[in-house]
Amino acid sequence: MKKFDHGQEHRDDGMVLIQTNLDDMNPEYCPYITDRLLEKGANDVYWIPILMKKGRPGLMLNVLTDGLLLSEIETVIFEETTTLGLRYMPVSCSRLGRNFEKVSTPWGAITVKTGYKAGKLVHFAPEHEDCAKAAREHGIPIKQVYEYVRAIYISQKSL
Amino acid sequence: MKKFDHGQEHRDDGMVLIQTNLDDMNPEYCPYITDRLLEKGANDVYWIPILMKKGRPGLMLNVLTDGLLLSEIETVIFEETTTLGLRYMPVSCSRLGRNFEKVSTPWGAITVKTGYKAGKLVHFAPEHEDCAKAAREHGIPIKQVYEYVRAIYISQKSL
Amino acid sequence: MKKFDHGQEHRDDGMVLIQTNLDDMNPEYCPYITDRLLEKGANDVYWIPILMKKGRPGLMLNVLTDGLLLSEIETVIFEETTTLGLRYMPVSCSRLGRNFEKVSTPWGAITVKTGYKAGKLVHFAPEHEDCAKAAREHGIPIKQVYEYVRAIYISQKSL
Amino acid sequence: MKKFDHGQEHRDDGMVLIQTNLDDMNPEYCPYITDRLLEKGANDVYWIPILMKKGRPGLMLNVLTDGLLLSEIETVIFEETTTLGLRYMPVSCSRLGRNFEKVSTPWGAITVKTGYKAGKLVHFAPEHEDCAKAAREHGIPIKQVYEYVRAIYISQKSL
Amino acid sequence: MKKFDHGQEHRDDGMVLIQTNLDDMNPEYCPYITDRLLEKGANDVYWIPILMKKGRPGLMLNVLTDGLLLSEIETVIFEETTTLGLRYMPVSCSRLGRNFEKVSTPWGAITVKTGYKAGKLVHFAPEHEDCAKAAREHGIPIKQVYEYVRAIYISQKSL
Amino acid sequence: MKKFDHGQEHRDDGMVLIQTNLDDMNPEYCPYITDRLLEKGANDVYWIPILMKKGRPGLMLNVLTDGLLLSEIETVIFEETTTLGLRYMPVSCSRLGRNFEKVSTPWGAITVKTGYKAGKLVHFAPEHEDCAKAAREHGIPIKQVYEYVRAIYISQKSL
Repeated sequence: MKKFDHGQEHRDDGMVLIQTNLDDMNPEYCPYITDRLLEKGANDVYWIPILMKKGRPGLMLNVLTDGLLLSEIETVIFEETTTLGLRYMPVSCSRLGRNFEKVSTPWGAITVKTGYKAGKLVHFAPEHEDCAKAAREHGIPIKQVYEYVRAIYISQKSL
Repeated sequence: MKKFDHGQEHRDDGMVLIQTNLDDMNPEYCPYITDRLLEKGANDVYWIPILMKKGRPGLMLNVLTDGLLLSEIETVIFEETTTLGLRYMPVSCSRLGRNFEKVSTPWGAITVKTGYKAGKLVHFAPEHEDCAKAAREHGIPIKQVYEYVRAIYISQKSL
Repeated sequence: MKKFDHGQEHRDDGMVLIQTNLDDMNPEYCPYITDRLLEKGANDVYWIPILMKKGRPGLMLNVLTDGLLLSEIETVIFEETTTLGLRYMPVSCSRLGRNFEKVSTPWGAITVKTGYKAGKLVHFAPEHEDCAKAAREHGIPIKQVYEYVRAIYISQKSL
Repeated sequence: MKKFDHGQEHRDDGMVLIQTNLDDMNPEYCPYITDRLLEKGANDVYWIPILMKKGRPGLMLNVLTDGLLLSEIETVIFEETTTLGLRYMPVSCSRLGRNFEKVSTPWGAITVKTGYKAGKLVHFAPEHEDCAKAAREHGIPIKQVYEYVRAIYISQKSL
Repeated sequence: MKKFDHGQEHRDDGMVLIQTNLDDMNPEYCPYITDRLLEKGANDVYWIPILMKKGRPGLMLNVLTDGLLLSEIETVIFEETTTLGLRYMPVSCSRLGRNFEKVSTPWGAITVKTGYKAGKLVHFAPEHEDCAKAAREHGIPIKQVYEYVRAIYISQKSL
Repeated sequence: MKKFDHGQEHRDDGMVLIQTNLDDMNPEYCPYITDRLLEKGANDVYWIPILMKKGRPGLMLNVLTDGLLLSEIETVIFEETTTLGLRYMPVSCSRLGRNFEKVSTPWGAITVKTGYKAGKLVHFAPEHEDCAKAAREHGIPIKQVYEYVRAIYISQKSL
């Protein structure tokens, strides 16, 4: 699958960071809006607690998206949030090559996501969903699953 | 009044976002500085709690302004805050068409701010100052004023 | 005036800290609610950004009050916020002796609030409202007013 | 159903607030830990970003629980997080009487949660899950569903 | 050494949590104050960003201390911060049994801190200072040192 | 020394702001990473608490750097943090002219950092390290050292 070929370390100059400050929105909507934006194709969505004028605690919505989706993402933000305006700026992204590998554990196979820079492994991380599932099903602490998967991965790779 | 004609949905590419990190300023100055910058013509001013070097909790001042005011706004920031340097980047803004309408309530007329995208109403919100005044004068919870104004507005518009 | 006699360093064991987590309230209400609670006699009101269940960013309202006002303050919180429940715990307060003194400046007299522990000055601070007023009326940076008032106070007291 | 009888406004003095500061835990675990604690019977779980010693940004885990569950909840915290110690204090809770009512909408029935103090309605809120489901299935903004449900509820109750 | 005997899991009911809200203090003082309080014997010191009255962003200082040190710690807070008052409440602490073990690595011996509940290992963590030193001296990423130490510890213990 | 000549007020258009969101990194690494990046030549490094997808509390790393160092700084971020990608945008910086002056105090000479705009002093601040050292060695509160140094500086300059 082309997308996860670890040769794919790359730079992308056509990204846009959209921001809007919300001081009058029910914060209960936030996770729903995050999901809606990710489904529309946003690369990342996050919220920052801020202090706005008139002493109001607010939330800044941040959406990182491919510039080609800008108009579509803007429409979702205007429809779903209470904003009257948003701002955006062009950004470049640097991404590691990525790969997914499987590690065998007593609780079944667990995926490890890896990151490569110039062909060299610089990061690996057990996939959360797999670990959470194993922890739940086998009644063991989630941190223990992570630790174990990491230790196996390291020994397999002789890191 | 041209400014609130709801045909005025627009994009503005000449905006600038100014940021400066403050780790040695009396935070008591913040609301005063916010007011000063808004009076000078800044479009928005907000503060973000951050963690700076040497383990210091700081505040990042953010000012969104028309690029034409950049120099004047910079002067205020240097005079009023404790910063020795600031950074800025060009940003574009998308803004809904905006309008103001009145809603009759048992506590007097209350303004509703509306937002239009491509001529379609996508947002409306009771004006805070009007609601706060009504709540205070009539001894009713502010949330009740908001709820009531919203309900009337919806029924009037058959939304 | 008894209240500001600096002999008044004291401990108060009848205070209560009330907290409630809000994940579905328009944050625009916050400053209004703060004012309402202070007017009712609360000693202090502050808000903390928190992360609540289901991935919701929320705000924790904190109200410090004399235990005798607990029931009245609770009523305001239930009426004005969107909470369905709140929690509280008894707290003790230690307070410095406090005094107010005047300092002459080129921009008029400015009040300095002082704090005493066992009769010894351990803190002094120019009053914000006075400094802000002087800064506005005389067109000087607020930090300069503070600095100046502090320097005069120190030299007067030979601190 | 006894639990939702709106006569049930009550005070509960046997609650405990448990806190622990974490500066060395993968924050990816947080939502999982929140769920685990709620499943064990905790009344509320929330996280606060803090600044710890040595300049470390940390997270404070807060768990509100019935005192009878203290030991069980403690065990989960020690097993699932990276803490070596936790603190707790007794708290009292005041809770509104609560009820659930249904409102008919063009998108199906939606539940409204209500809060009563001394028999008087002081709060009502559309249930998030119902609104999110309606918004998704019918392709309408979530804020519009909330507004509509609120308006209907108000008109039905002649609030 | 008695203190690190892992039989020492214990509960301590004589602790106190001291809090004070600061809206007019140079945040540059914070790390210094943290160190001063720890040197005086405080068990933990942390800071929380809050929103105070008049729209001011503030910092809440939290100090966890043995009740026997309360008066001494209070004095430091009054002398070093700008507060005019503080609040405190009694808290109980539950602490795991703790131990320190050494792990051999290609970069020298590194300490692992362990936590025991009812005699069972529930947590272990490489000591930060040791890892940071190894990372610096050998020019390897700090996360790699941690991962390696964890993997060795796990394999040694057959966890 | 050219760098601190107060004629050096300047604008720098070749700066870059790098950001990356981390939801799976041990926050204990943060101060170490800050130091590593500053040693590599970054102009500023700071962290912002954010709320990421799936309800995860995360930290956004921000690095301000000269564009010429972009590649080198990126390498450190990829090696030391757990990120799989980062984003950056070009920024311009405005900096005051800066100078350092000495002030004599009963506790030895203390440096004051000054900022000039168009040749006019707009800011001065006692150097933290000097004040902290004096406070420790002479057993006086740090705020008192700052106040004293400020007062002397003001009287010397007849500000």
